[in-house]
Amino acid sequence: MLRLSSESTSAWLERAMADMDTILLDHAHCEKKAASTAMSLIFRYQDEASLMLPLSALAREELEHFERVIIILRSRGQEFRRLEPSPYAGELLKICRTPRMERLIDTLICCAFIEARSCERMKLLAENLKEPVLARLYRSLLASEARHHQCYLDLAAPYTDRESLRERIETISAHEAKVIASAPPMVRLHT
Amino acid sequence: MLRLSSESTSAWLERAMADMDTILLDHAHCEKKAASTAMSLIFRYQDEASLMLPLSALAREELEHFERVIIILRSRGQEFRRLEPSPYAGELLKICRTPRMERLIDTLICCAFIEARSCERMKLLAENLKEPVLARLYRSLLASEARHHQCYLDLAAPYTDRESLRERIETISAHEAKVIASAPPMVRLHT
Repeated sequence: MLRLSSESTSAWLERAMADMDTILLDHAHCEKKAASTAMSLIFRYQDEASLMLPLSALAREELEHFERVIIILRSRGQEFRRLEPSPYAGELLKICRTPRMERLIDTLICCAFIEARSCERMKLLAENLKEPVLARLYRSLLASEARHHQCYLDLAAPYTDRESLRERIETISAHEAKVIASAPPMVRLHT
Repeated sequence: MLRLSSESTSAWLERAMADMDTILLDHAHCEKKAASTAMSLIFRYQDEASLMLPLSALAREELEHFERVIIILRSRGQEFRRLEPSPYAGELLKICRTPRMERLIDTLICCAFIEARSCERMKLLAENLKEPVLARLYRSLLASEARHHQCYLDLAAPYTDRESLRERIETISAHEAKVIASAPPMVRLHT
């Protein structure tokens, strides 16, 4: 399992809980983006047979969450619409090395960190939100995010040796903590 | 419902049945491509709220089929791998008009035709294949393809009036028949 190098601040939690409509909208976008990242790995690495079924299943599950969040938004009188994303994922992925297989390993580790950070934040939301619908949503999703983060690490493992993987995870963990700390104070899941 | 302007030839069926490993591999690619087309519409038209849930459900179902076909390939000792695609979908989509909403309508109609052609061909395979696993696969999938093709038309309908939609369907139907007739004699689902 990954260990995040930093804990989310109470300032983030307060900002999020004060504007759950925006958090839900951003969350729907994150699920959509996660599905599309898994799908783009399927396209880019289509000769890596062992990746196909797990990535496809991941993409399906992210899409299912995308739909669940949209339905909850609707029940609150909101509609899915465009939203400026947090710079988090883009900044995080900048650490990926260029050569094809190193890029694969790094992208999978970054995806694992995105899931791990989401899991940490959804846990905070699940524990602190008073609205039963939302608390239930985040309780159920955080289990998937934990599973997904492990899945991404399992997919990366066969492409490198244990020691190199460990080192790379440490490097990306430190980078992730820096990226999340320097995100602007927007109301987003990853700021 | 759409009516295809041409029927598939027995030459296509013979070519396909003589090399089902290649047809299955191409089929897996088609499911993956269909999922990615639905997903790209979600990204491109994210302010069209009514499209989000149906397109996401379509993408999930295509991914599920992608996985099913990969599992059948494996049971035949084959692995998913790169394959030169038939020019069919690329040629078909060239008819899409450029302005944003016209492009949406045309893309949805083209997707409906791809599903309708797949449905016609899967029916031929289901009726003629002797191997029970494959006959069963295509019997079960052709029902989904029929449902999908209707779904794409239903998504297009609110964006235009009934008469313009009918005309556009006729134009694209004639184009589709030309495209499928001029595809090179490769072993593919759409040649």
